[in-house]
Amino acid sequence: MHFNASNIDQMEKRYRANFINALSGFKSANLIGSINQSNQHNLAIVSSVFHIGAHPPLMGMIMRPHTVPRDTLQNIKETGVFTINHVNIEHVAQAHHTSARFAESVSEFEQVGLTPWFSSTHRAPFVAESKLKIALEVQDIQLLALNQTELVIGQVVEVIVDETAVEADGYIDIEQLNCAAISGLDSYHSTSRIARYGYAKPDMSPEILSTTKE
Amino acid sequence: MHFNASNIDQMEKRYRANFINALSGFKSANLIGSINQSNQHNLAIVSSVFHIGAHPPLMGMIMRPHTVPRDTLQNIKETGVFTINHVNIEHVAQAHHTSARFAESVSEFEQVGLTPWFSSTHRAPFVAESKLKIALEVQDIQLLALNQTELVIGQVVEVIVDETAVEADGYIDIEQLNCAAISGLDSYHSTSRIARYGYAKPDMSPEILSTTKE
Repeated sequence: MHFNASNIDQMEKRYRANFINALSGFKSANLIGSINQSNQHNLAIVSSVFHIGAHPPLMGMIMRPHTVPRDTLQNIKETGVFTINHVNIEHVAQAHHTSARFAESVSEFEQVGLTPWFSSTHRAPFVAESKLKIALEVQDIQLLALNQTELVIGQVVEVIVDETAVEADGYIDIEQLNCAAISGLDSYHSTSRIARYGYAKPDMSPEILSTTKE
Repeated sequence: MHFNASNIDQMEKRYRANFINALSGFKSANLIGSINQSNQHNLAIVSSVFHIGAHPPLMGMIMRPHTVPRDTLQNIKETGVFTINHVNIEHVAQAHHTSARFAESVSEFEQVGLTPWFSSTHRAPFVAESKLKIALEVQDIQLLALNQTELVIGQVVEVIVDETAVEADGYIDIEQLNCAAISGLDSYHSTSRIARYGYAKPDMSPEILSTTKE
């Protein structure tokens, strides 16, 4: 089945949103915690978090100004901080619920049944139920002029994770932590490891490091 | 287990790469097909593809100039086109193998055992074995000054997918297509759907649209 640029352009709006959002493959399921200058906090599901670099440790996410997480973007601009909290497979319904259009004065934490938690050094709220919590400070916000979305780049300043999930080589076993994946706009998935592979070399097939949880 | 900014800064380089790359959660597993002006083609595994917008249909990926996919970036700059090919769970070893430092004159397709395929309208090669193939034209390349990586933004101009995977509302069931997910630098995963949820509303828990393949 072939779709060309013209076919895509002529798709009904909601159909196209589902179709194009699925093209980017499996995505991370994260709840973004933020807070404004009046200490009103906000929680929003985001599937656009991605890795930018390890040193310095930088993560990015795409924010669409006209969709629901706009309070999040406003808060991040006001306070310069946010948190990324991995969604557990047992909390996907609550996580998805944060995408509803709650009033700005409402805390999504209370509305969906998740618990705000604060570390001693970071102003933005974490999700207590999350098994991998990350605090970030904004380094840059770049406008993507093509469609007026904004790329938020944050530096990792704190990571809170179960010790058992951190392997000897630094890899964090997010599958063992029951982190969820997203596809499209609204589909949530659990995962099963196929394998970890060693550093690839030209003249041989990749070595399998592990296939099961360690 | 808490890690602060100083702990992260003091991690051994490879340990930090594994650790920070895992923080961004599950990621798409994609093979990027590209071609240079001499028609030498190139194939590289990339886990940084993400959704930017549906209308126009835009996808982004982060390229690190000093790591293996540098031929890909050079090719994209030369010809302005590339392909994104979802990795099937049965081809993850071949896909990972493309990350080896093959000589520039070598075709990764031949070396790892995948098949280049061309559509009638796009210059860059697709992966014949991939069940979801996407052709893109470069719209912009933005330097991320913080760490000198480059954000490549492409517009989707062609999509080739099994008809059975495209649902009535436009959602593409990438799990039914056996698309793989990645965590960290080298871990490959299959998925199991938990649920698709309906458009979230403030006053009720999200409606489950489907839990199994349709």
